[in-house]
Amino acid sequence: MQVRKQFAIIGLGRFGSSIAKYLAEMGYEVLAVDDDASRVQEVAHAVTHAVSADSTDEEAMKALGIRNFDVVVIAIGQDIQSSILTTLILKDLGVPYIIVKAQNELHGKVLNKIGADKVVFPERDMGLRVAHSLISPNILEHIELSDDTSIVELKVSSAMIGKSLRQLDIRQKFNCNVLAVKRNGDMDITPLPNESLAKDDVLVIVGKNDQLTKLEQAYAEV
Amino acid sequence: MQVRKQFAIIGLGRFGSSIAKYLAEMGYEVLAVDDDASRVQEVAHAVTHAVSADSTDEEAMKALGIRNFDVVVIAIGQDIQSSILTTLILKDLGVPYIIVKAQNELHGKVLNKIGADKVVFPERDMGLRVAHSLISPNILEHIELSDDTSIVELKVSSAMIGKSLRQLDIRQKFNCNVLAVKRNGDMDITPLPNESLAKDDVLVIVGKNDQLTKLEQAYAEV
Ligand SMILES: Nc1ncnc2c1ncn2[C@@H]1O[C@H](COP(=O)(O)OP(=O)(O)OP(=O)(O)O)[C@@H](O)[C@H]1O
Ligand SMILES: Nc1ncnc2c1ncn2[C@@H]1O[C@H](COP(=O)(O)OP(=O)(O)OP(=O)(O)O)[C@@H](O)[C@H]1O
Ligand SMILES: [Ca+2]
Ligand SMILES: [Ca+2]
Ligand SMILES: [Ca+2]
Ligand SMILES: [Ca+2]
Repeated sequence: MQVRKQFAIIGLGRFGSSIAKYLAEMGYEVLAVDDDASRVQEVAHAVTHAVSADSTDEEAMKALGIRNFDVVVIAIGQDIQSSILTTLILKDLGVPYIIVKAQNELHGKVLNKIGADKVVFPERDMGLRVAHSLISPNILEHIELSDDTSIVELKVSSAMIGKSLRQLDIRQKFNCNVLAVKRNGDMDITPLPNESLAKDDVLVIVGKNDQLTKLEQAYAEV
Repeated sequence: MQVRKQFAIIGLGRFGSSIAKYLAEMGYEVLAVDDDASRVQEVAHAVTHAVSADSTDEEAMKALGIRNFDVVVIAIGQDIQSSILTTLILKDLGVPYIIVKAQNELHGKVLNKIGADKVVFPERDMGLRVAHSLISPNILEHIELSDDTSIVELKVSSAMIGKSLRQLDIRQKFNCNVLAVKRNGDMDITPLPNESLAKDDVLVIVGKNDQLTKLEQAYAEV
């Protein structure tokens, strides 16, 4: 039988505690660490072990058996120095996979150099997602299939309501393919070319990025 | 001609400044506001206007003509009281669309009640994304088509390498459909059933969530 992965999360701000709680909820063993005892208290009920400790204290990390965890997430924010020092210590102790939250590009570069296996920028990345959604409010989701091709979820705009897929002729005009139509939480993967689109319908479309952008803009609300 | 939307971002932490910079880069008019002058300095070169002001000061907000912006993002973090007060003031001044960053569930509920048009939880949501990726490391992307159906990008695992789509028989065994194969940044939307999969190939698959999970787990690395 496969032994389930064990996770440790260091730094229980909003980002770290969200990870710790979700993994614990999914049945994984989670050690949660913060040097602020009140933060530890807040997640203690939800995780396997919650410990108040300073992650820059190598002896404390050894005592927690941190090297036995498959993945450690370092989610320390403001205190860049502690984040870097903790990464160095855990690397040195032989933790197999270390994910670290970075404050900015420079911090990220340093973390990569000293051996972080993955560096994440939660605020920056969510900022970009929100900004995208402000510019293209009808595009609800976006998967990049390659540098120039994507699948998007496009909310039907008022100019599309009442028209059929055949009338819109998306395939011909934008060289895009409608894979499915979502309606009332259901998904129709064989949408009829003659059926009229209704308010709140969502089209799942594959196509080249520039064509998808043209399509989105052609039907955007003024 | 359509007039381009105008945006104001209040609170220039990592989240707010990421939004401000991206929108400005895309050519939109962006007003960036923070009561910390050093934060204002950091984004001043990137945006249309950068102003040091306290957003809980109603007169200051009026003087900035905040009601003329189509969308205002309130990205104040720690200071929940300022975030709520700012939301109330901007609502009152008639800003058409207000997005507010929340610290926690309770804060979010209050914001919804006082009229925020959209409430976002960047750290929580990114935490969930990272946690997902730790549990299903081979699933690179995920679009929910409906409550029970999704499109995922699945990284080919070692047990799949050298096998053809026909040999894997994903359609029969998991009732899922391979829409495309990504290889070296290219996307093949008509993958040949007899072609062998290679390391670093990515399958784009549509199917029911439970079947997709089974598929992912059947081929997960030990
Ligand atoms: N040396 C350390 N050892 C253990 N925990 C630490 C250490 N330094 C900081 N922390 C903890 O890391 C947590 C996250 O730090 P902070 O709140 O500065 O980050 P943040 O990026 O603003 O968080 P978020 O945006 O996720 O809410 C805090 O709870 C803090 O107590
Ligand atoms: N009343 C106010 N008026 C204008 N700006 C404010 C006000 N209150 C707070 N801010 C600014 O909001 C910004 C974001 O606040 P803070 O750093 O507490 O949030 P955060 O959630 O930790 O940010 P992030 O995680 O996005 O980096 C700060 O630069 C702060 O100066
Ligand atoms: Ca913070
Ligand atoms: Ca934050
Ligand atoms: Ca719209
Ligand atoms: Ca794997």
